[in-house]
Amino acid sequence: MKNDIVITISREFGSGGREIGEKAAKALGIPFYDRAIILKAAENSGLSEEFIEKEEQRVTNSMLFNLSTGGISSQNFQFMSDQIYIAQSRAIREYADEGACVIVGRCADYILREDVKCLNVFIYADKYFKFNRIMKKYALDQSAAEKMIRESDKKRSRHYRFYTSMEWGDKENYALCLNSGKLGIDNAVRIIVDAAEKM
Amino acid sequence: MKNDIVITISREFGSGGREIGEKAAKALGIPFYDRAIILKAAENSGLSEEFIEKEEQRVTNSMLFNLSTGGISSQNFQFMSDQIYIAQSRAIREYADEGACVIVGRCADYILREDVKCLNVFIYADKYFKFNRIMKKYALDQSAAEKMIRESDKKRSRHYRFYTSMEWGDKENYALCLNSGKLGIDNAVRIIVDAAEKM
Repeated sequence: MKNDIVITISREFGSGGREIGEKAAKALGIPFYDRAIILKAAENSGLSEEFIEKEEQRVTNSMLFNLSTGGISSQNFQFMSDQIYIAQSRAIREYADEGACVIVGRCADYILREDVKCLNVFIYADKYFKFNRIMKKYALDQSAAEKMIRESDKKRSRHYRFYTSMEWGDKENYALCLNSGKLGIDNAVRIIVDAAEKM
Repeated sequence: MKNDIVITISREFGSGGREIGEKAAKALGIPFYDRAIILKAAENSGLSEEFIEKEEQRVTNSMLFNLSTGGISSQNFQFMSDQIYIAQSRAIREYADEGACVIVGRCADYILREDVKCLNVFIYADKYFKFNRIMKKYALDQSAAEKMIRESDKKRSRHYRFYTSMEWGDKENYALCLNSGKLGIDNAVRIIVDAAEKM
């Protein structure tokens, strides 16, 4: 990779965005960061990886103040979520500073908006493409897959809005929006690779 | 061009979408259709090119029933708009049947949705990119450019919604959405060409 471009991938659940990001990173010969960010964040903040993962699952509810907190107050809960966000943001900036890479999710497009040269990509697809992927992946029927997709995207959307004050999936925030259902996974990978190489 | 793919380009006013479409068609060695569609529609419908152009300018107002009709009733006015839409749709289908091509605007993505293999593209950009292009092109100050962009996009959006019942610019309707301001005109062209060749 000639340039130090950071490719951020945001994606609808079931669109194959993670797979596309991983394949693009491989094709470009650059690091790919996803769950690894959680680990790095854990190291930096002193919070355990297990704790961060658990809190990430619940973070959306706290934003709605509609949560079962298991004994912690909503204020404390929000404080923990913020700590996780801050630790993850720091990790994302560190990865970006190290050179070209692909980062999936976790508001990376927003976190890096003024820091480095980014190619911000959003991956989406029509619902049947997503249903089929999720049904296969998790051995679910269509109704369960639909529910899983809806709930996951709702969480991503709320998390993004809460920390960025922008709309998740609003194309204005991205350089490229790719419909993986219409293009196919491999074409989407190629488009990202081509775009990154030519920027 | 190996395949008979039809590339439809929808675009925000000032985003350079027309230029991108024209350059992509040239790079692929396939026909490019924009105003030519109006001429073809005129031939097919018996309506004069001049009349169609004039009505196209006014069509949005009729949808709002908030028009100065210059003597024709809003019902007749809508009837004329529909005739133009039908004639243009026929022309678009004829062009698509002839083989690979690029068609800009005029709801081509919707008109061809079940007919042929399409690569539907939406071109957009941040407002300052668009302001600068329009200010240069029409020798306007920023305020006038902003007004021109706003009014033009409003017309396109209403026209699209009226005839397709879908939202203009909603990324779900496109395979590729490209931010020409972030990517640059030439990169946007290359991405479309690559995508079309690989589909």
